[in-house]
Amino acid sequence: MFQRFEAQSAPVQGPPRLAALRTLMTQRGFDAFLVPRADAHQGEYVAPRDARLEWLTGFSGSAGFCAVLADIAGVFIDGRYRVQVRTQVADVYSPVHWPETQLADWLKEHLPSGGRLAYDPWLHTVSEIAGLREKLTGFELVATDNLVDAIWEDQPSPPDAPFTAHAPEYAGETHDAKRARLVAAMNETAAVLTLPDSIAWLLNIRGSDIARNPVPQAFAILHDDGRVDLFAGAGKTDDIRDHLGPDVAVHDIATFPAALGHLHGKVLIDKRTCPDMVATVLKLTGCDVVEGQDPCILPKACKNETEISGAKTAHERDAVAMVRFLAWLDAEAPKGGLTEIDVVKALESFRTQTNALRDISFETICGAGPHGAIVHYRVSEETNRPVVQGELLLVDSGGQYVDGTTDITRTMAIGTPADDHKACYTRVLQGMIAISRIRFPKGVGGQHLDALARAPLWLVGQDYDHGTGHGVGSYLSVHEGPQSISRRSDVTLQKGMILSNEPGYYREGAFGIRIENLLVVMPAPAMIGGDDREMLAFETLTYVPFDRRLIDTTLLANAERDWIDRYHSDTLALLADRLDEQTRNWLTKACAPL
Amino acid sequence: MFQRFEAQSAPVQGPPRLAALRTLMTQRGFDAFLVPRADAHQGEYVAPRDARLEWLTGFSGSAGFCAVLADIAGVFIDGRYRVQVRTQVADVYSPVHWPETQLADWLKEHLPSGGRLAYDPWLHTVSEIAGLREKLTGFELVATDNLVDAIWEDQPSPPDAPFTAHAPEYAGETHDAKRARLVAAMNETAAVLTLPDSIAWLLNIRGSDIARNPVPQAFAILHDDGRVDLFAGAGKTDDIRDHLGPDVAVHDIATFPAALGHLHGKVLIDKRTCPDMVATVLKLTGCDVVEGQDPCILPKACKNETEISGAKTAHERDAVAMVRFLAWLDAEAPKGGLTEIDVVKALESFRTQTNALRDISFETICGAGPHGAIVHYRVSEETNRPVVQGELLLVDSGGQYVDGTTDITRTMAIGTPADDHKACYTRVLQGMIAISRIRFPKGVGGQHLDALARAPLWLVGQDYDHGTGHGVGSYLSVHEGPQSISRRSDVTLQKGMILSNEPGYYREGAFGIRIENLLVVMPAPAMIGGDDREMLAFETLTYVPFDRRLIDTTLLANAERDWIDRYHSDTLALLADRLDEQTRNWLTKACAPL
Repeated sequence: MFQRFEAQSAPVQGPPRLAALRTLMTQRGFDAFLVPRADAHQGEYVAPRDARLEWLTGFSGSAGFCAVLADIAGVFIDGRYRVQVRTQVADVYSPVHWPETQLADWLKEHLPSGGRLAYDPWLHTVSEIAGLREKLTGFELVATDNLVDAIWEDQPSPPDAPFTAHAPEYAGETHDAKRARLVAAMNETAAVLTLPDSIAWLLNIRGSDIARNPVPQAFAILHDDGRVDLFAGAGKTDDIRDHLGPDVAVHDIATFPAALGHLHGKVLIDKRTCPDMVATVLKLTGCDVVEGQDPCILPKACKNETEISGAKTAHERDAVAMVRFLAWLDAEAPKGGLTEIDVVKALESFRTQTNALRDISFETICGAGPHGAIVHYRVSEETNRPVVQGELLLVDSGGQYVDGTTDITRTMAIGTPADDHKACYTRVLQGMIAISRIRFPKGVGGQHLDALARAPLWLVGQDYDHGTGHGVGSYLSVHEGPQSISRRSDVTLQKGMILSNEPGYYREGAFGIRIENLLVVMPAPAMIGGDDREMLAFETLTYVPFDRRLIDTTLLANAERDWIDRYHSDTLALLADRLDEQTRNWLTKACAPL
Repeated sequence: MFQRFEAQSAPVQGPPRLAALRTLMTQRGFDAFLVPRADAHQGEYVAPRDARLEWLTGFSGSAGFCAVLADIAGVFIDGRYRVQVRTQVADVYSPVHWPETQLADWLKEHLPSGGRLAYDPWLHTVSEIAGLREKLTGFELVATDNLVDAIWEDQPSPPDAPFTAHAPEYAGETHDAKRARLVAAMNETAAVLTLPDSIAWLLNIRGSDIARNPVPQAFAILHDDGRVDLFAGAGKTDDIRDHLGPDVAVHDIATFPAALGHLHGKVLIDKRTCPDMVATVLKLTGCDVVEGQDPCILPKACKNETEISGAKTAHERDAVAMVRFLAWLDAEAPKGGLTEIDVVKALESFRTQTNALRDISFETICGAGPHGAIVHYRVSEETNRPVVQGELLLVDSGGQYVDGTTDITRTMAIGTPADDHKACYTRVLQGMIAISRIRFPKGVGGQHLDALARAPLWLVGQDYDHGTGHGVGSYLSVHEGPQSISRRSDVTLQKGMILSNEPGYYREGAFGIRIENLLVVMPAPAMIGGDDREMLAFETLTYVPFDRRLIDTTLLANAERDWIDRYHSDTLALLADRLDEQTRNWLTKACAPL
C-alpha cells in the first residue's frame, strides 16, 4: 500500500523546535529565517530529509513556507490549506493567507528596521530571491546554511536508492540523440539543469528518491558540445554506468558547486526553478548567465511515438483496474459501511493487481458527499467519512507505470442521485466532451480552449475555481509543464503533449463533481469540405465509463450523446477481453447506448 | 455621398516623384528615407496632406510604408494588400511582403555598410524607432524634416474645420470630471496625449479633420493637477472656448514642441503610439519619461450609462436604415442588373435618410460572390461586380451618429442558396450566437472567448483568418482598443466595453460569409441555481434580421434556434413602429419563427 492515512506530524512537535530555531537565529544574529516546503529541485513532493516545513511546524501540505521571526512565525498557505493548517500547527504559529498577503509585505510589517533576513540559497529560486531583494530595500538578505538542518538531530539521510535506466522501448529516443538535439538549438550555451524530471528525460534515467514521482534527485550540467556532468549521491549511478556511456560523467553531488565554479562562457539557467545558490556561484566566476527556459521542458512535453504508444498501453492497463474498481464499488456501496479509506485501499489494490504499478501517481483524492467539494481533499483517519446513499463520490487517482503515468477522475452516484446532481454532472460532462471533441489550428494554446469546458456551466451562472487541465509526464510527474488548459497558460499546444481534461463543479458543504480523462495532442485528420489548413485535435487516452445514472440525456445535444455512446462502445471494445466475466457483464451494461 | 469609387491615385504618378525624392536624398546625403502611411497621430485614416505614401507611390491601402533607397524602393504591405499594390504602383517600386519580411532585415540587405537612414520623427512611434535602432547596428539613423513634404508642391493644407463640443447628453461625464478621475490615478505624473480619439474623449470634443473618424487633429498635455494644454491648428477651437473652460489652455499646434521643452518631472508617454520626436524632446529637457498606456484608453473603452443609452438609440436608428436596405435588396436583386456600387450607394442613401448620419464609420465592404472572400474588399469602378443569382452578397458597413458608432455585417443569399452556402452560413451564425449568449466571470478576456465563435467551424475543419471582434468607440473610431475578441488580446473584459462579434467563413474564388453584431459588456443578472459569483454577459446592440434562407435549421441546437427566434421577435418589436407598411411587412416575414 503506497497511500497512508495516519498523520506523520502533530502540532505538539512545533513549539520546542521553534524555540530551538530561534535560539540559533539569535546566536547567528538573524532577525528572520525562511523555511520553505520546497527542496533544491522545486518539485511537488520532497524526500523525508527535505520535509523541513512539516518537521518544524507540523504542516504537511504540498505548498507553503514559514517565516520565523523572534516574536512571530508566519505559516503562509494558499486557499487549499486554510482549514488543514489550523489542525496541524500549534498556536505559536500564525497562519497567513497567501498569495493575498505577500511575504515581502508581511516581512516589512514585522521585521525590525534594517533587520537581517536569512535564507538557505539552495531552497529558493533566483526569481524568489530577486523579488524579495527588490521589495525589501532597507533590510539585509543573508544567504546561510540551513538552520533547520542544524537543529534537526535525527534528520533522515538523503535517499540512496540507485538510479535505473529508462529502457529504449519506453523512451523512444536515446540520450545521445536527445543531447545532440538540444545542443544544436542552444547556440553554444551550456545549461545548468536542476529539475529532476528534466534530467530524467534527458538521460533516460529514473529514480525512487521521492514518493509518487519516479525522478532522480540530481543536478546536471549540459555542455555546449553535448557532454553532461551528472551530480548525484555516492553509488546511485553504479548500475547505469554503461547506459550513461562516455559522454556523461558522474560526480558526487557535493562537488556540484565547485563544478559550477569552473564553468565559463554562456550558461543558461531557468530563474523560475534554479536555486539562487547556482546563479550566485555562476556570477562570481564570471560566467555570462543567460536566463531562459530549461531546454528540456518543451521537448519533454512533446511525447514521441514510443511514449504515446506506451501511454496508451498504460492507460488500458489502468482502465482495467478502474473498471474492476467501479464494478466493485457498485456491488459494495449498497451494502453500507464503506468509508473513503476503504475505497482508496480497494482502488490501490486493483491497480497493484495489474502487477505493473510502480507507485500511485499522487495521493488518491476520494471525497464522499461534501468532501467532494474540497478540491484537494486527502482522506486521513481523522477525516474519514462513510460513503452514504444519495450522495456523490468523487475519486481522482492515477498510477505510475514504466510505460506511462495515468490520472483519472470519476464521480459516482451512491444510490439514486438527485436531479440537481444529474444536471450539474451533465454540464461538467458537456464541458469535458467539448474539449475532447474540439479540433483547432496550430497556434492555439490551452488559454484559448479553457472556456469551451466552462461554457455549459457559465450559461447557468456556475463555474469551477481550478484550471481545466495540466500537462502529464511519461513515467514522470503527473503535473508537468509547460502546457495546460487554463486561462493562465501562455503555451501553444503541440503534437505529442499529454494533458488532463478535468472540468468540475463544487457546491461547498454538499457535493463535488469532477470528470477527468487524459488526452494527447495529435494532428487532426483532414475532413471533406474542410479548409486546406493543418489542424490539431485531442486523442483520448483514458477509456473508463461515466456513471450513466448521473447523465441527464435531455440536456445533451445530439453530437454530445453520440460522442458518449461512441466513447462507451470504444471502451467496451478495448477492455472486454481483459476482464473476468462478472466485470465484463458490469462493463457491458455501463457502456450500453444512452 | 461619403463613399467614392474612383481611384484617387495612379501608378503613373510614382516614377517622377520617386526621382525627385531621390535627388533630394542625394543632396542631403541620405542613403534611405522612410515614408509611412501613418501621420503623427497613428490613426487608421489620414488627412489628404498626410497621404504621403499614396502621393509618392500610388498605393492607397490603410497600412504600409515605403523605404526609398538609391536603387530600390520597397513598398511594404500586409496580406490584405498583396493584389491591390500590384495594380496601384509602377514597377519602380518593389512590393515587399510584410510582416514576413521585417524592415530592419530588408534594410540590412539593401543599405550600404554604414549607410544613413533618414526618417521624419513625427511619423514614427518611439517603439518603431527603438526597434530599428536595436536591429540596425552599424548604420546611422537620422531624424529629419519630411522630404516628401519638401518635394510635394501642391500638398494640401492641414484640415481647418473647427472642433465642436460633444454635448453632455451624449458624453455622460464632464471633461472636468474625466480629468479629475485620470489625474487621481496617475500618481503625480503628467501625460502627453497624441491620439486624437483620446483627446476627443478626454475633453468631450469632436472634429472633422479626417474621413470616417470624427476626431480632432491635436496634441495635448494633461498636467498632474488636471489642467490641459491643447495644441491645435489656428482658429479651430474658437467655437468651443466656453466648453473648454478655464483649465484647458489652447495653443497653436506649432508651439507643441516648445511646450514639451518646458515640462519637467514625471511625464507619461505611450511608446506604441507616441511620435519619436516627443520622446526625444522630453529626454533632452531632462524629464523623467514614464512609459505606459495612454491613460484615456481604458476609461474611454468602458462606456458610461449615457454612452450605452446613446449607442442603443444609434443602433435602432441604424437598424431602420439596414432593414429598409435589406427589403430594397430583396425587391431589386431578382430584377437583375444591380452592381456592388449600386448596393453601396443604396445603403448609404438609407443611412442618409435617417437625417442623423454624420459620416459612414468606414468604407462599406460590399462583396458579391467571390469578392466576399476578400476580407477587406473595397469596391471601385475597376472591380465593380454584378450581383448575380445563386451567389452570396456580403455587406459590412456602419454609420457615425452623434450618439454612437455602428458597425454591422449581413450576408445575403441572392436567389436560392446552395446547400454548402447554408451549412457554412449556419456554422458562422452558431459561432456568433455562442459569443452573444455566453456569460463569464470577471477576469476573462477576449482571448479566452474567441474559440467559442470558431468551434462550430473548427469541428468541420474550417476557420477564418481574422479576429472575432474589435472594440468600437462612442461617436469615435469604429476600431478602438484595447479590448478585442481575439487570441492576441491581453485585456480583461469590463462593464461598458463595446465590441463587434463577427465570425466569418471565406472560400477563395467562391464566396464569403460574415455576420456581425455589436455587443456591450454588462453585469450578468443572477440566476437561480447559479453560484454566488459576479459574472458578465454581452448585451446585443444590433437588431437586424439574419437571412433565414441561409439558415439550415437541422444543424441548430434547440438553444440556438430559440436564441434566433427570440432575436428576431425582439427585432420586430423594436423596429416595427418605425417602418413604412411595406418594409414592416417585409420585416414581419423576415422575423417569423424559424
